Amino acid sequence: MDVESSPKKVHAAIREARRRGLTIGCVPTMGALHAGHVSLVQRARSENDFVVATIFVNPTQFGPTEDFSRYPRTLDTDLEFCRGAGADLVFTPQVADMYAAHAETIVRVTGLSMVLEGAHRPGHFDGVTTVVTKLFQITEPDRAYFGQKDYQQQLIIRRMVQDLNIPVTIVTCPIIREADGLAMSSRNRYLSPEERGIAAEIFQALQLADRLAVGSAVSPREIAERMRAHLEGTGGLSVQYAVVADSQTLASQETRIGGGSGVALIAAKLGTTRLIDNQILNYSVAE
Amino acid sequence: MDVESSPKKVHAAIREARRRGLTIGCVPTMGALHAGHVSLVQRARSENDFVVATIFVNPTQFGPTEDFSRYPRTLDTDLEFCRGAGADLVFTPQVADMYAAHAETIVRVTGLSMVLEGAHRPGHFDGVTTVVTKLFQITEPDRAYFGQKDYQQQLIIRRMVQDLNIPVTIVTCPIIREADGLAMSSRNRYLSPEERGIAAEIFQALQLADRLAVGSAVSPREIAERMRAHLEGTGGLSVQYAVVADSQTLASQETRIGGGSGVALIAAKLGTTRLIDNQILNYSVAE
Repeated sequence: MDVESSPKKVHAAIREARRRGLTIGCVPTMGALHAGHVSLVQRARSENDFVVATIFVNPTQFGPTEDFSRYPRTLDTDLEFCRGAGADLVFTPQVADMYAAHAETIVRVTGLSMVLEGAHRPGHFDGVTTVVTKLFQITEPDRAYFGQKDYQQQLIIRRMVQDLNIPVTIVTCPIIREADGLAMSSRNRYLSPEERGIAAEIFQALQLADRLAVGSAVSPREIAERMRAHLEGTGGLSVQYAVVADSQTLASQETRIGGGSGVALIAAKLGTTRLIDNQILNYSVAE
Repeated sequence: MDVESSPKKVHAAIREARRRGLTIGCVPTMGALHAGHVSLVQRARSENDFVVATIFVNPTQFGPTEDFSRYPRTLDTDLEFCRGAGADLVFTPQVADMYAAHAETIVRVTGLSMVLEGAHRPGHFDGVTTVVTKLFQITEPDRAYFGQKDYQQQLIIRRMVQDLNIPVTIVTCPIIREADGLAMSSRNRYLSPEERGIAAEIFQALQLADRLAVGSAVSPREIAERMRAHLEGTGGLSVQYAVVADSQTLASQETRIGGGSGVALIAAKLGTTRLIDNQILNYSVAE
């Protein structure tokens, strides 16, 4: 497995792999890898001839009051995870490798980026879409792998790729959870033992939504209210949003229109740690 | 020479050319081709194995009061020009081929796009950078060719390509002029015979700037004033800007700092027709 920080050298390595007729799979990450990331690299390994993982804590997707400076950096163990999962190349640029002093170009998905995470983290998705465009230009993948945990992110990247004709297929992989249901996240390590005990209630709220969607005729609006009530009944959780939305447009769903589906999305803070999670809802009415 | 309107088919043709080891040159145009465009295709032909020209009147780079609907469409003669200049493939998408109904992604060069043309045509460069990004993703060129006549445009595209790591070399080609110096432009055909007689005064103002830069110690600020005075002394021309700017940042140049260079840029309206032109200035002081 090669490790390389130079965009030019990574691009050259990818071009050489392409010249040999290999298909390319790319797994963009911010490092601090966990089993969720490993599942992405493994999936990429199973579907492509050449797998490149990228590890870059991208400053432009953090707000001024967010955790850029304290975001966990664990490069040595990250590289071991990548090696174990079968990556051929890990791209580990420094900030100066990715952003020239006079850089001023942004890629923006104007609608989807404004709601939910975008409303709570202004500018966040501009940072994401810009850096992912750059990573796609450098690594020129046939397929790129993202976790469903960042539901809105994968939807925005799909929209961007389609709108800009970027020749890559986006593959969204299932959420990987701890034994008690907490979605794996690099930020979970910020949680105190007490907070960690509370955190799984987010998953419990999503499970409640799932049961209400499958088993009865409760409206999406009421499902959202029940999720919120569950979370607000849990001491220590501060809910930022708890919604049921159209799975493609993220527009709030009020009523079921025949079966169909939606997505339940939650963001909540536990102390200073912000957690997100989601669950696809498939509506059906029990007879 | 193939003519194709489908982005998917063009991309497949380019990938096939790449697979055969060919280098790709791309010439993006809005059609209404003239000798300036022909020089771009010829240059691309001389430097690449496979040449793709694109013909697309991009609606998103026209303002609501601009000439999108009446912009000249001359596809048959355009294709003859492309064939004569040696294009292998001409990409002729319709608007619906390029923009999905729910498209919402923009590429923006935030600083350079705000001044000069950007100030007079709000949103224009967002349209340009977005469509050029799309064309680059579809045609994946090694080199792309732009005319110096749209000086700010080629500068913005260079900035964008560097900022987004798009793996293409931008080649800027000299302005092609009519016998009296008028820069060739698809919009020249809007000019009445009387306006056409006046239009060459824009070139005369640039020639004046060139002489002042080479032959004396006149400051850039005064050169700009002399250009403006020349244009304003010409009946019928309405000056939008006449400036001397840094050739990379487009910041207004006030004084010469040792020799160096700058760029004189003019935009003026003749009746309802808007014309632009420019001239690189190489400063030297006559002894």
